[in-house]
Amino acid sequence: MTYSNSDPVEVDFAGQTLKGIYINKSGENAIVKLSSGYNICVPENLCKPRDAPYTAETPKASPLEQDSKLPLLSIISTGGTIASTVDYRTGAVSSKFTAEDILRSIPELGKIARYHTLQPFNVLSENMNPAMWQELAGAVFDEISKGSQGIIITHGTDTMLYSAAAVSFMLETPVPVIFVGAQRSADRPSSDNAMNAICSAKTGISELGEVVICMHTNSDDVTCSLHRATRVRKNHTSRRDAFQSVGRSPVGEVTYPEGKVTLAKDAVHRGEKTLRLSAKLEPHCGLIQYYPGMNPDVLDAFKGYKGLVISGTGLGHVGTDCIEKISALTKDGCTVVMTSQCQNGSVCDRVYETGRDLLNAGIIEAGSMLPEIALVKLMWVLANAVRKEDVARLMRTNLKGELDYDIRGCE
Amino acid sequence: MTYSNSDPVEVDFAGQTLKGIYINKSGENAIVKLSSGYNICVPENLCKPRDAPYTAETPKASPLEQDSKLPLLSIISTGGTIASTVDYRTGAVSSKFTAEDILRSIPELGKIARYHTLQPFNVLSENMNPAMWQELAGAVFDEISKGSQGIIITHGTDTMLYSAAAVSFMLETPVPVIFVGAQRSADRPSSDNAMNAICSAKTGISELGEVVICMHTNSDDVTCSLHRATRVRKNHTSRRDAFQSVGRSPVGEVTYPEGKVTLAKDAVHRGEKTLRLSAKLEPHCGLIQYYPGMNPDVLDAFKGYKGLVISGTGLGHVGTDCIEKISALTKDGCTVVMTSQCQNGSVCDRVYETGRDLLNAGIIEAGSMLPEIALVKLMWVLANAVRKEDVARLMRTNLKGELDYDIRGCE
Repeated sequence: MTYSNSDPVEVDFAGQTLKGIYINKSGENAIVKLSSGYNICVPENLCKPRDAPYTAETPKASPLEQDSKLPLLSIISTGGTIASTVDYRTGAVSSKFTAEDILRSIPELGKIARYHTLQPFNVLSENMNPAMWQELAGAVFDEISKGSQGIIITHGTDTMLYSAAAVSFMLETPVPVIFVGAQRSADRPSSDNAMNAICSAKTGISELGEVVICMHTNSDDVTCSLHRATRVRKNHTSRRDAFQSVGRSPVGEVTYPEGKVTLAKDAVHRGEKTLRLSAKLEPHCGLIQYYPGMNPDVLDAFKGYKGLVISGTGLGHVGTDCIEKISALTKDGCTVVMTSQCQNGSVCDRVYETGRDLLNAGIIEAGSMLPEIALVKLMWVLANAVRKEDVARLMRTNLKGELDYDIRGCE
Repeated sequence: MTYSNSDPVEVDFAGQTLKGIYINKSGENAIVKLSSGYNICVPENLCKPRDAPYTAETPKASPLEQDSKLPLLSIISTGGTIASTVDYRTGAVSSKFTAEDILRSIPELGKIARYHTLQPFNVLSENMNPAMWQELAGAVFDEISKGSQGIIITHGTDTMLYSAAAVSFMLETPVPVIFVGAQRSADRPSSDNAMNAICSAKTGISELGEVVICMHTNSDDVTCSLHRATRVRKNHTSRRDAFQSVGRSPVGEVTYPEGKVTLAKDAVHRGEKTLRLSAKLEPHCGLIQYYPGMNPDVLDAFKGYKGLVISGTGLGHVGTDCIEKISALTKDGCTVVMTSQCQNGSVCDRVYETGRDLLNAGIIEAGSMLPEIALVKLMWVLANAVRKEDVARLMRTNLKGELDYDIRGCE
């Protein structure tokens, strides 16, 4: 028996008969996507054809009732797994849900607040880009202007941290702005979408007043962490607690199912800041990780760029043979910022010879900024600095918690 | 009073008079390198000139006595902080010690073993490159051939993990091969060089039989961890416990000062493998991290390369607009390997549409391999695969612990 992609099959496995669809052959084995959403890899002779394709249950379209006495939140849907189901024809996950579908499928949300929903675009987050960040920040600004008391942005987890950092730099916000995603799609038993969404709604009506990412704290369904948008990484490809604060603790935590929000001492509070949008970005910025043996010509790819972030080794180094090209970039008007591929700790180019040569070549030390955050900040700073000489100063100034403090020397 | 770089100064600070040398001005403040090796940043009016430059004590050249009854180890010195002192003229740290100097300055080493020392080159590790890895692997091979029972390689920490991985792929070893470095130079009170060196010597006479990195387990001076060379990252710019095993536990631990070596269940043991060197590497390989808004033209920098590792988002994605360029690279004979910038977890390009498009474009999924390790492995595989069609198979095969198991589907 030969199977093709999308064929409905049954698999006799560990004494059970599992339903799924055939994906492809891998050596002597078959890859089968089970109705749970997981793939298994089994000897092909354990598969049997079955008649009817497995169909995922479509969520019941309960009427969307809103309680007018509850505070108003906005849900801005951009796509991603939190808005996804598995396509059982191809086995692939695709983004289909709108914000309204999310509200319908998680009825608990209706008890927390009433919602205004909108969907400026619907993409898997690897296709987000700076222009979309600007559109998103504009949508958030509009919603807050119109009276929304908290903004929930559903987003694919792949690039959620870049988007959250971008909105954080573009927007001064008096209310919580919460990015939330899911690592497992809604039709999988292990889906984290409902708990994350509920915790983000509870955060939306809380006393927080800054941009955060709300995701599982650990692998239990007990708390979500609120990560400051400028100090967070996605540190695992699939775990539900993939997001981690880097170099600091989360700015808050939400218990589940109670929904109690506890904020850190240094969290920014509701009403502390006045709404303001500075949505300009300079998109001609790049990021490159240095590696041993890197041909300096690779840096030519960034000729004509306005900004480049280098993810150097250790305290912020590259091979000596790259320094001439870096010097040429800075002379040509490109702002070159040095971060570290170590991710934790702080860049300091005053200790070793190589670092001093880099400072002479005109690089700016990024302190404790993560490479990805430094890239987003550089896009913002280059577009918003009034004078050219303000760029270095702003990169070294703690604007939105991306630095522990303003950079003077090495600290 | 105006100071220049290298001027000897005294600083009145917190009721003490500290000696140091003036580095440069930072705003209204002066950066001064203290004799402890640390920099401080103080208002310049706290500085006073002083007459004599501070001179670091040169280590006493105690006679190098070797106990002929002890086992023979080799110390191969390549440079880096473990072989460094601060240059009090410029305040910069530079590599000066040879392996013999290290032995002289850490007399405890002489009680553990006798040593053959050599120094194939002396560089700060950001200047290591694939040709030096080959030379290093050759030196290790020669030492083992001549009867050395364990190899200690002192190395700068910046790129130590790349070098350790490279030697791991090039060499089958019957004896322990230990990379060791220091995060703080020998003349600083917090230096980790002696403890790390002693723990590495104890590992050298242990029952281990693979390539590891030996560094502080945590910030106490109590144990060193032995990290498998293919599963380790430098995750902090300055902490002494910067090195961490990723996706697995260390393969061993060494207590200090006792020097008791405990190996993990799956550690490779002394004598398990037969000495063999396959030192060919294909240096025309690159690494690039994807970021939102990346102009696909950046990929043109790798035209003509034999291999490229992409550090994608999430499960191993890039923006859809990059896929055409990736397809062109693979058609042109470049092996493109997809890793994840999440670093933990495993790449799987069978879940989302973008991943499937990438598989169609000819990429190879790197499973749980770290981007840096995948780069080094790719250099080795491209140079050592007998037939072109073996490249993908070898990249998906667990050769030296870089993968949890051979990659078939997504696991």
